[in-house]
This record gives sequence, structure tokens and C-alpha cells, in this order.
Amino acid sequence: MTSPGRAQVVGTGLIGASIALGLRERGWHVTGLDTDEGRADEARRRGVLSAVGEDPSAELTFVATPVSTVAAAARRAVAHGGVVTDVGSVKAPVVAAVGSPRFIGGHPMAGSEQEGLAGADGSLFEGATWVLTPTAHTDPDAYARVRSVVATLGASVVAVPPERHDAVVALVSHVPHLTAAALMRLAADGAVEDATLLRLAAGGFRDMTRIAAGHPGIWPDICAENRQAIVEAMDRLVAALAGVRDVVAAGDRAGLLRMLESARTARVNLPARVARADDLAELRVPVADRPGVLAEVTTLAGELAVNIADLEIAHSAEGERGVLVIVVDAADAARLRAALVGRGYRPSARPLS
Amino acid sequence: MTSPGRAQVVGTGLIGASIALGLRERGWHVTGLDTDEGRADEARRRGVLSAVGEDPSAELTFVATPVSTVAAAARRAVAHGGVVTDVGSVKAPVVAAVGSPRFIGGHPMAGSEQEGLAGADGSLFEGATWVLTPTAHTDPDAYARVRSVVATLGASVVAVPPERHDAVVALVSHVPHLTAAALMRLAADGAVEDATLLRLAAGGFRDMTRIAAGHPGIWPDICAENRQAIVEAMDRLVAALAGVRDVVAAGDRAGLLRMLESARTARVNLPARVARADDLAELRVPVADRPGVLAEVTTLAGELAVNIADLEIAHSAEGERGVLVIVVDAADAARLRAALVGRGYRPSARPLS
Repeated sequence: MTSPGRAQVVGTGLIGASIALGLRERGWHVTGLDTDEGRADEARRRGVLSAVGEDPSAELTFVATPVSTVAAAARRAVAHGGVVTDVGSVKAPVVAAVGSPRFIGGHPMAGSEQEGLAGADGSLFEGATWVLTPTAHTDPDAYARVRSVVATLGASVVAVPPERHDAVVALVSHVPHLTAAALMRLAADGAVEDATLLRLAAGGFRDMTRIAAGHPGIWPDICAENRQAIVEAMDRLVAALAGVRDVVAAGDRAGLLRMLESARTARVNLPARVARADDLAELRVPVADRPGVLAEVTTLAGELAVNIADLEIAHSAEGERGVLVIVVDAADAARLRAALVGRGYRPSARPLS
Repeated sequence: MTSPGRAQVVGTGLIGASIALGLRERGWHVTGLDTDEGRADEARRRGVLSAVGEDPSAELTFVATPVSTVAAAARRAVAHGGVVTDVGSVKAPVVAAVGSPRFIGGHPMAGSEQEGLAGADGSLFEGATWVLTPTAHTDPDAYARVRSVVATLGASVVAVPPERHDAVVALVSHVPHLTAAALMRLAADGAVEDATLLRLAAGGFRDMTRIAAGHPGIWPDICAENRQAIVEAMDRLVAALAGVRDVVAAGDRAGLLRMLESARTARVNLPARVARADDLAELRVPVADRPGVLAEVTTLAGELAVNIADLEIAHSAEGERGVLVIVVDAADAARLRAALVGRGYRPSARPLS
């Protein structure tokens, strides 16, 4: 892989600190800055940074500040020399504002429940998708260097033009978030006289509105930076929903079925979250609501040395019973399934790819 | 509670067969019908039904047929005498079409991964919400009888007017389902040249579109029966999303924050799925993606005799690590939390009410 060198991290929150730690664990010298000087000092004391401050001989700078301040910090780093990248969730305006062949926009698709420096983890990016957004003006050597360092951290690089990245995240992240909020408000308004009516909300509604429970603090910046792509995607969603409304109003059964079938095909083919999706399988195990069921199933997996890549309880029903959805390596699926059958469960299995 | 008598079930799918079994387990004589005669015979052989056929002396009939055929089956049962109820997911058109003081619309919020007769379970409704929709014309004695029998099956009855039920399920079930399909299609269209771009879809998008993977077969009937409420709710959603679009286009940060804050408040206050929500607490435990973590946590709960009412892995992150969200009795939360801390986890706990 790439040989260790000197890097610099601007912003020592969760992502910046995790990059710093990951590079240090791989032999790099990493200096860092933060608008909160106490936090930068704390990062150095914890061994996340080699030193606090700017490093004139850093060959690579990661800008990991809030999305509205990335462009200014990146321009400053570019002026100091070396290759510069960032980790923000909006790319086109930043890439245009920095306007340097030595700046490559980036967006690692990783995070953690544990925010800030406390969550710093050098293995945070292992298996994660990391978007890079080179353009026609990008210096190929600079791009190659960023790409190889990101790969060193264990991430899979996906390269797309900045505008394309922004359009896709508007569709799969920003607009869904705004839609979840709109659905939640509508349901709450509709049940306003009697909140117990929201008991009628089943698992599907809970799934759809879960992200609306998050803190809204980051959204004004994201919506400001990615305004154009979000407005375009919202226009498309509004038009699509108006079309569905007309299909229902017209009683067009065939049109409704076509629409739902194509959505179903797309959802079933959605690539799995994990990079090695091709090698995964999904087991669905109907389970009752009694103590010990989860422990039994997960202990069994542990005894068989089967790693659980993902797990959820899908309440297909509105009641208290559900189906345990377990994602494991495809090579392990048959073995785990047989063991579950041996314990009296009735699991089904299918490959995820 | 109510004393056992003679009941009749029309339709021996999952819900009809579970009602029959639940009543038989409580001493009732239950006859049953199905358009598929083989299935009715099979139900009798399995002990789900006391006998196949119509029972002239049945005091109570449950109509558990597909939503488009409920009204006709209910009218027929009303003509034979006794009290009649149904289990369909749309109420106002059915209640109006039957038009009898001895018919009370019903909708148990329960289901199972296991469909049909094979999933029949006499305890399916324990703890579930069961909506009944009496009107000004309903015979009070008939309503009291249905209510007491439903309570016998372990369900909690919520009584609302039929139109109100339909408006609420349009908002919390039908429209969210159609919206999930529209979002999924939009994202798939937007990434059409390069499906790997859908790797950028994080946990929130997966949650929001999960229901779009279901078989669409039941939706033409539901949309036909509940057309009016669905069209009204779609109009409200389209207007709400157009409003959000305008807030983003105008760069109205304060307006956006207000909108997201009110959605957040509503989502956090969404009553839990389980009827005894007031006594539950939620623990959030950050966990790594390694074998054994789930087994350790769930085994610990088992050892402490703490029942897990609900569990999910929330991928707040796009990576492979997540947070285990565990819902337990509020009385057990502190004990489980302390035990988890003793094993080196860092759980947070909060009451769900």
C-alpha cells in the first residue's frame, strides 16, 4: 500500500479524529487543528494527534470541519501546499469554491453513535464506502495519493463527479430526511385530539420516521450548501407523489401495481450497506416475544463462530411478535440455518446479492 | 370476563384462524367457512375450528376475508342473525355498506411473518391494539359483546368513528407505504447509470424504503376501499413537501429548524408499539461489529430475567457499527444498565413515555 508520511487534520471531531488515529496507527505523523483549542490539546494527550498546529511539510490535509466552513479551511490549506481533501456531505459548491487541482472533494460514508473525540476510532472506515469527487481539472497525482491513503484506512473508494454526488445524496439522504419529518408532522397533526390513535402506527411507519427523531442542528447548513440538488429532488418527489395520488383517485389498479412492483424490484436490489455485499446472506427467523429468544439465536451464532453483520427485528406485524432478520456471510448461512432448525425455529435464507 | 358461547369465522387465513383458535382455547364452539373448502377442512383437522359450515345459533360472527369482499360477507352474516364484526383495514365504506346496528367494524393491529393457516396462533392478539368503530346507529349491547370478546383474546380496544379510523390509517400506513415506493423509485431512477451509487444510501434510507420491498398484491384493494382518505392525505403530504421545498429554496434556516424540531418532538412522543408503553424504558448501547456482542447483551438480559420487549440495531452511522436499542420494562432498566456498564458497555437509558 502507500508509505506513511506527514498529514494534517483540520477539525478533530469524530471523523477528523478517527482519520488522525487511523493514520497514526499506520505509522503517519499527524498534526491537527481545531477552533476549540482545548479539544485539539485533548486529542494530542489521547494520542490521536502527534502534535497540535499546522505542519508546513504535511503532504496531505484532511479538512473535517462543519460543511459551511469547509471551503475556507480548504483554501487556506491549499495555499500552504500539499494535497487537500475534505469529508463534508456536500461537494459541488465546495469543489467550485476551492478551485484548485490539488483539492479533491471527499465524503466517507461512516459515522458512530458516539460523537466527537470520544468516538475516535482508527478502524471507523474499514469496509465503508468513501466517495471522492475528482473533476477534469484535478491533478492526477494528487487524486492518486488521496485515493491510496483512503484505501489504507480500509475504505472502498467510489469516484463520481461532485454534482453527481450531490444529486445522489439529495435523493438518498437529504430529501428522505425532510420527507420523514413531513410525514411525522402530518400524522401527529391528524391525531392531534387523541394521541392514542398513533398506536395505529405500525412498524413501517416507525421505520419511516425514525430519522425524524434526530437533532436538527446540522440540517440548515446541509440544506443551504446542497440547496439546488435538494430543491430539484423535492420537485421530482412532489411530482411523483402527485402522480401516485392521481393513480389512486382514478382507481387505476394496474397502474398502482406497476408502480409498486417497480419500487419492490428496486428495493430488493438495493446494494447492502456493507462493501462485501456479494458474499452475504439474509436469514429471516419468526420469533415470539419471550425472554431468551434473542440470546438463544445470537449465542448459537457465536458458538458456530458465525459473525452477524447486521441484525434487526422487523415487526411485519403490529403486534409484539416479529421476525429476526440476520445478515451473515453467505458461506455460513446454511450452517446457521440448520442449527436454528435444530432448535425448533423456522428460518428462511436467501443470498443478498 | 365474558362467558364462552358459539362463534363463527368467515375466512380462515392468519387472522380468522387465530381468532378461532384463541376462542376455542377459551372454551368457545367455533364453526368456520372459507371460499377454499380444502382450507376450512384443514382448519378443522388442526383443531382451529370445531366444525366447518354456517352455525345458525352462532351469537357472534367474525368476517376475516380480503377487504373488498367484507361488506358482502358481513351482510350475509347479519341476515343470519347475531352480532357481526370484521377485521379489515378500511372501515367507513364497509360500515356504510352493511348498515346494520348489529355490525361493528373492527381492525386488530396484529399480524405475523407466518401467513395463512400455518401462522394461526391463539395468543396473536395478546397486547395488541384492536380498533372498533361503533357509530350512532350501533346497538350498545352488540358493541359491548364484541368489545368483551376481543378483550378476552387479550387485545386492548380503542373505539373511534369509522371515518376517523380510515383517516388515521391513511396517514400512518397507506400514504407512508406509497411514499416509500415513490422514494425508492426516485432513488433508483437517479442512480440508473451506476447502481453502485446506491451504496451512498445510509441506514435512514434503508429504514424508510423497507416496506417498499413487500408484495404489492393487497394494495389495489386497500387503495380502492380507502380512496377518499388516501387522496386527502396525499394532498396534504404533497402540500407539506412543497412547503418544505420552498423553505429550502428560500434559505429559511429558522423555518427549517422549526419544522424539524416539531417533527422531532412528535417522533420522540410517538407511543410505543406495545400497549403498556407507559412502563417501558429504552436503553441505547453503542456496539462494535464483532461476533458475540449481541449474544453477550441478550444473554445478560436473560440471566437477569429481564424481558426484551423490542430490539433493533440502529445504524446511525453508514458504517458497520451501530447502536443496540433495547426496550425493557422500566422497572428493569436500571438493573440491566448497571450490568451492561459492568461488562464495559456505555449504555444510556430513558423512559419511553
